[in-house]
Amino acid sequence: MVAPATTPQRAIVEYWVRQAVYRRLGTHLPRTAAGPNPLVVNVSARHCHLTPEAVEVLFGKGHTLTPWKWLYQDGQFAAQETVTLIGPRSRVISNLRILGPCRSFNQIELAYTDAVALGFDIPLRLSGNIEGTPGCMLMGPAGFFELKQGVIRASRHVHMHPADAEFYGVKSGGELKLRIGGPCGLTLDKMLCRVDKSFKLEVHVDTDEGNACNLQPGTQCELIR
Amino acid sequence: MVAPATTPQRAIVEYWVRQAVYRRLGTHLPRTAAGPNPLVVNVSARHCHLTPEAVEVLFGKGHTLTPWKWLYQDGQFAAQETVTLIGPRSRVISNLRILGPCRSFNQIELAYTDAVALGFDIPLRLSGNIEGTPGCMLMGPAGFFELKQGVIRASRHVHMHPADAEFYGVKSGGELKLRIGGPCGLTLDKMLCRVDKSFKLEVHVDTDEGNACNLQPGTQCELIR
Repeated sequence: MVAPATTPQRAIVEYWVRQAVYRRLGTHLPRTAAGPNPLVVNVSARHCHLTPEAVEVLFGKGHTLTPWKWLYQDGQFAAQETVTLIGPRSRVISNLRILGPCRSFNQIELAYTDAVALGFDIPLRLSGNIEGTPGCMLMGPAGFFELKQGVIRASRHVHMHPADAEFYGVKSGGELKLRIGGPCGLTLDKMLCRVDKSFKLEVHVDTDEGNACNLQPGTQCELIR
Repeated sequence: MVAPATTPQRAIVEYWVRQAVYRRLGTHLPRTAAGPNPLVVNVSARHCHLTPEAVEVLFGKGHTLTPWKWLYQDGQFAAQETVTLIGPRSRVISNLRILGPCRSFNQIELAYTDAVALGFDIPLRLSGNIEGTPGCMLMGPAGFFELKQGVIRASRHVHMHPADAEFYGVKSGGELKLRIGGPCGLTLDKMLCRVDKSFKLEVHVDTDEGNACNLQPGTQCELIR
């Protein structure tokens, strides 16, 4: 599977233009534009990560996920496939997007607004840390799959290349804040830094966080200590 | 109509206890507890304000709102009556709460998450400033009522008594920030100060803001410059 070329995000184009303009002017870049990589902030709508076994139960024997939209981190994609989530009070969320590739565990990431609508009480957890979290039922075209656990609100985090971590002065597992501008701007505390050579600099916030500040492609964002 | 006595909110009880403890200890109050009044932060779920005429169209000739739950500001209440909101793509929100008493204009306050679910594109506006905003259809047990305009996301604001404004060093129309603690804490910028002798110190945030930081009755909140 090779990801096709896609139009770069506005934050990346702005970063390129800023670099070029300041180089032309012969002046120093402002701190917010001087990082080794552009800062991309993306809103993660509710979604799930599934094992190959769960995909087969939901979509049929031998079925594998089909990439629909490539995400910013290399190799990650939103799949064409979606499922229906059935919550504890028989309320449902339809068209819950599956993100690929498949993982070794099943996990559903909801915003608190989703959880309230479903009647869930879900914990704030780091992705992957799902021990003791609530479960739910998923429905696909080929069958039902019951998760014993795995429904969480994912903690805010920022993916960083080691060069980004060095620029911002943090280590993997450390925290930064994200200042988001605009007429209903805010600053998110406790943004966990996940550092890996394979990562591109990207913040994931959920729909509650994104909607609280009306985060748009042109909104000014800045990682601060 | 007289508001019955209700159990005071946790923030108010904590304020009283803190005052008493520090007085007993004979030490100075910390800045956050030294204000003339306790800081109450409430989440406003989506709701509407209606004219007496709209209430009659929706609920029948001569109908007036019945208080169901008294709000923190004197005389304000959540009514027993709710309506169904029909959005531009025929999607609906049921059980939209009406807040009383009636006003001289019709206004619907939604969170952006609600607006996305309905298919609306709604502006951020100060309550009452609804010129040129989108409209919608409301349905009640006695009929339909069409709003030509009035659907907004209400700007964050804080109600203040003049004594509070003096303590925090702001004037009516000025801005403060609200720092909210906890494991997914944040700081909300551009919190508009509305000052009036009839007001009790209270911040209103919407469900997106409240859920972004998992605001609970015990969450530490602080107004800052």
